[in-house]
Amino acid sequence: MTQGDFVTLLVAIGALLALARTLGELLRRFNLPAVLGEILAGIIVGPTVLGMLAPGLQAQLFPATGPVHVTLSGLAELAVVLFLFVAGMEVDLSTMWERGRTTFVISVFSMSVPFILGFSLAWHVPALFEFDISGDRFVFALFLGTCMAISALPVIARTLMDLNLFHTDFGMVIIAVAIFNDLCGWLIFAGILALIGEGRGFPVRMTIPLTLAYAAVMLTGGRWLIHRCLPWFQAHTAWPGGILALGLILALLNGAFTEWIGVHAIFGAFLFGVAIGDSPHLRQHTRNIIREFISSIFAPLFFATIGLKVNFALHFDFTLVTVLFAFACAGKIVGCSVAARVVGMTARESWGLGFALNSRGAMEIVLGLLGLQFGIINERVFVALVVVALGTSIISGPLMQLVLGLKKPRRIGRYLTGRTYVGHLAAGDSLGAIRQLSQAAAAASGLDTEEVVKAVWAREKIMSTGIGDGVAIPHARMRELAAPVVAVGISPDGIDFNARDGEPARIIFLILTPMRDEGAQLEILADISRTFHNADAREQALNARNYTEFLALLNVGDSA
Amino acid sequence: MTQGDFVTLLVAIGALLALARTLGELLRRFNLPAVLGEILAGIIVGPTVLGMLAPGLQAQLFPATGPVHVTLSGLAELAVVLFLFVAGMEVDLSTMWERGRTTFVISVFSMSVPFILGFSLAWHVPALFEFDISGDRFVFALFLGTCMAISALPVIARTLMDLNLFHTDFGMVIIAVAIFNDLCGWLIFAGILALIGEGRGFPVRMTIPLTLAYAAVMLTGGRWLIHRCLPWFQAHTAWPGGILALGLILALLNGAFTEWIGVHAIFGAFLFGVAIGDSPHLRQHTRNIIREFISSIFAPLFFATIGLKVNFALHFDFTLVTVLFAFACAGKIVGCSVAARVVGMTARESWGLGFALNSRGAMEIVLGLLGLQFGIINERVFVALVVVALGTSIISGPLMQLVLGLKKPRRIGRYLTGRTYVGHLAAGDSLGAIRQLSQAAAAASGLDTEEVVKAVWAREKIMSTGIGDGVAIPHARMRELAAPVVAVGISPDGIDFNARDGEPARIIFLILTPMRDEGAQLEILADISRTFHNADAREQALNARNYTEFLALLNVGDSA
Repeated sequence: MTQGDFVTLLVAIGALLALARTLGELLRRFNLPAVLGEILAGIIVGPTVLGMLAPGLQAQLFPATGPVHVTLSGLAELAVVLFLFVAGMEVDLSTMWERGRTTFVISVFSMSVPFILGFSLAWHVPALFEFDISGDRFVFALFLGTCMAISALPVIARTLMDLNLFHTDFGMVIIAVAIFNDLCGWLIFAGILALIGEGRGFPVRMTIPLTLAYAAVMLTGGRWLIHRCLPWFQAHTAWPGGILALGLILALLNGAFTEWIGVHAIFGAFLFGVAIGDSPHLRQHTRNIIREFISSIFAPLFFATIGLKVNFALHFDFTLVTVLFAFACAGKIVGCSVAARVVGMTARESWGLGFALNSRGAMEIVLGLLGLQFGIINERVFVALVVVALGTSIISGPLMQLVLGLKKPRRIGRYLTGRTYVGHLAAGDSLGAIRQLSQAAAAASGLDTEEVVKAVWAREKIMSTGIGDGVAIPHARMRELAAPVVAVGISPDGIDFNARDGEPARIIFLILTPMRDEGAQLEILADISRTFHNADAREQALNARNYTEFLALLNVGDSA
Repeated sequence: MTQGDFVTLLVAIGALLALARTLGELLRRFNLPAVLGEILAGIIVGPTVLGMLAPGLQAQLFPATGPVHVTLSGLAELAVVLFLFVAGMEVDLSTMWERGRTTFVISVFSMSVPFILGFSLAWHVPALFEFDISGDRFVFALFLGTCMAISALPVIARTLMDLNLFHTDFGMVIIAVAIFNDLCGWLIFAGILALIGEGRGFPVRMTIPLTLAYAAVMLTGGRWLIHRCLPWFQAHTAWPGGILALGLILALLNGAFTEWIGVHAIFGAFLFGVAIGDSPHLRQHTRNIIREFISSIFAPLFFATIGLKVNFALHFDFTLVTVLFAFACAGKIVGCSVAARVVGMTARESWGLGFALNSRGAMEIVLGLLGLQFGIINERVFVALVVVALGTSIISGPLMQLVLGLKKPRRIGRYLTGRTYVGHLAAGDSLGAIRQLSQAAAAASGLDTEEVVKAVWAREKIMSTGIGDGVAIPHARMRELAAPVVAVGISPDGIDFNARDGEPARIIFLILTPMRDEGAQLEILADISRTFHNADAREQALNARNYTEFLALLNVGDSA
């Protein structure tokens, strides 16, 4: 690699990652999946957009041959292997076993119905896909069925967390089914690869039994062995670096094994991830390092490179996308409603289940890309599959909210603005502090300051709102308000809010909610209490020098 | 990349990393630097050993051309950029400024003396290096001087931590000097690259001013800007993924910039690391993820690939190695003793300073590799520099211990064995527990059980050793003992050891030390108290199912 090549490589990776992350973050704000932004980044700097506008620059930044191209492709291939390793780590087999029968029934229906729909469509209407008749129609139909049947565990888990459903019984059933579907989906795909694998290393009559044997061994003996060995590595190697390296090394070597026997490397990495992720000996700290680094760096890089490979505008086929989308959604929803009847769920729940499992997200995209690489599908079908994967993921959360009648819990950050942040409260007593915060809240919401003070003070006199640990939360409901308003003030010297622990309040929140606030006040109070229960968070709040620093601390408390 | 290539790539990375980490961990046990093991791994699977024994296998695993070779080389180049980014993050500029004058004086002498020695050697005895007279002798002499002058901050920091000197005043002076030396060393090297850079992008009269301007801007305005922007990113992006990605993206882009202006990419990554690492807004959690992942995965991979490039046996020159080693050590030690006189340190301290700064570790290896790549030195000189780098790092710790009369604090794990671990104490009272543990300790050390019980019980009667939180530490000094012996017993039901908090003891350590124990008892007690102060650690100790699981928890507590 020459100096020029190396500059190109660094800029290419840096720019791709920067755009992918930026778009991912932007979309996350609108509750859209980050993977959509990451793929868009590739589309923008790939042949679809930049290649049209400035083909010279595009070819210079992302050359189609030469050492930069080889390194970037190699990196993307490694990235997808590591991404599947992390996806496997999220799989908790015990969740699945605990709800054995329910999981099994729902899984069978929620996979078989869309699988049969997809298979039939591909088998009976090959012309829709412009399918080359010389290819193997059976393999193609199997593949399309699998694409329709698969679910995306990471997206589903994320949606459930957003909706506060993750730790409910209903949420756990969904997760268990998604795990089962993931495992089955990849097994079927391994079978497909084995079918087309003739000549690539092993004959099919060996690849399929080898794959099944490998999966069985890894999920039983391998899992047991890893669980037994982890404490030894923890005891005898640098921590957490030793376990970290062990995980990655074995993920790569398991990937090499499955690639060698004729299915893809992601299969081995995924199953090894399941096996190691299941062990309670893998500590949270080590998990976090692996997950954060791979999902913040390698995964966006991989998804962004997809846009570099395919021209999305050229291969976009509206009819195909619409048909596939309709079949995908119908399959999952019908399958789930049948299953829900069998296990005795309500109609509402069956719709919720259907919309939840309908997310195909990253998994279908990876599957589609491999299908493209192995020549099972063409670019048109690939583009359609990507659109279906993203579309089903996008509608999943909102539709679940709708049919289950759920709301996301409200957070303080959403109602706080730079105008309602008072970095230094001048007042020396509680009434003065309430007045100063009321001014800020009134200015931001158009209310009358005096009325706010009156309402809040009336509430304060009934029962003091000093909740201890130096935090006070004066609040009131205001008839004129349409949405909640929160103001926060910092008082370095502390103001007596008559807290039980006798501590003067240093962080004071003023919370105004509408008369019909539908639980907003409670949720905001709960959020404040949870965030500032932490002594570090309180100290950082006192040291924040401006609104952004204060917001930063809320965001950290959020994800921690 | 074909399927076969991808298998090779996965196996090559997996095997290289596995061997590098295994040897690194092995050497760490003998207090040798891990980087030595990582380089040895490359030497073993590279042309030096495997290439001699099984050239066919070696060429198949690590091909010298083709996509696997290109990807692996590209990955190694990225890895060294990221390694220098992390090295920069460890640099704390305020440590340097706080001890301004002392740092400056020691730095000047500790760099200039070895630099002059190295420069003169190269200039006056080029034949020693088999220096090609057609090359640029001035550049070569500058380069060799820099190699003699540089220190390795990470190795030095690690040695100081091992010796419990890191948080002392003396330790901070050493760190400050090492930081200054690192900065100067890389600046000089940037100058050298600029000198030989004619035709590579920019002319030298532009590269040098550009580099200096870049360094100045990054360490002042850039640093300020990063510090100002971090809270915004923390507040408005996913945490910690957003900051993680930001750090890596900017490290790569800064690397691209310095590579483009004609010095190497590592320079930009290093300086950006300094700038971002200095900000208190970069939280510990994010730092840990970056540092652990890069230093556990990318750094070993980079150092291992060095052995793939060069045949170390073929290019080993005993005379050259000996001369360079002597010049390197003499330069640092003389320089430091002169400096120590100027700032008023004792002779002992000046020797300690000299041995500490004599570690060249990873930094000189990176420098040597770049010198080799840019054609400044040949393989013989490169191999000699690697040996000097490793040799000076290895002798640093032991020699400092010797001249400063230091000992490492003793840890429990060192004195505990499988034979002295009693997973389930059957006894119901303290005397019974002491007897059972005494049996285990006596069996392991050859003492008489009854004498041990007598001594420990005598101590116990004077003052009970229940230290609360369910931990008890009966102990005694034994005349017949040469080294400490520790036994530990777990009692799920708890045994009354008369603790202040009234809790029965569930984890009981029996500690026997020699009469002249030189502080061993105290250090072991302190270690137990620190480790088991943590409620998690206590719970894990109770749940440990065997000796290895118990040891694992000690090791985690250790690095956390």
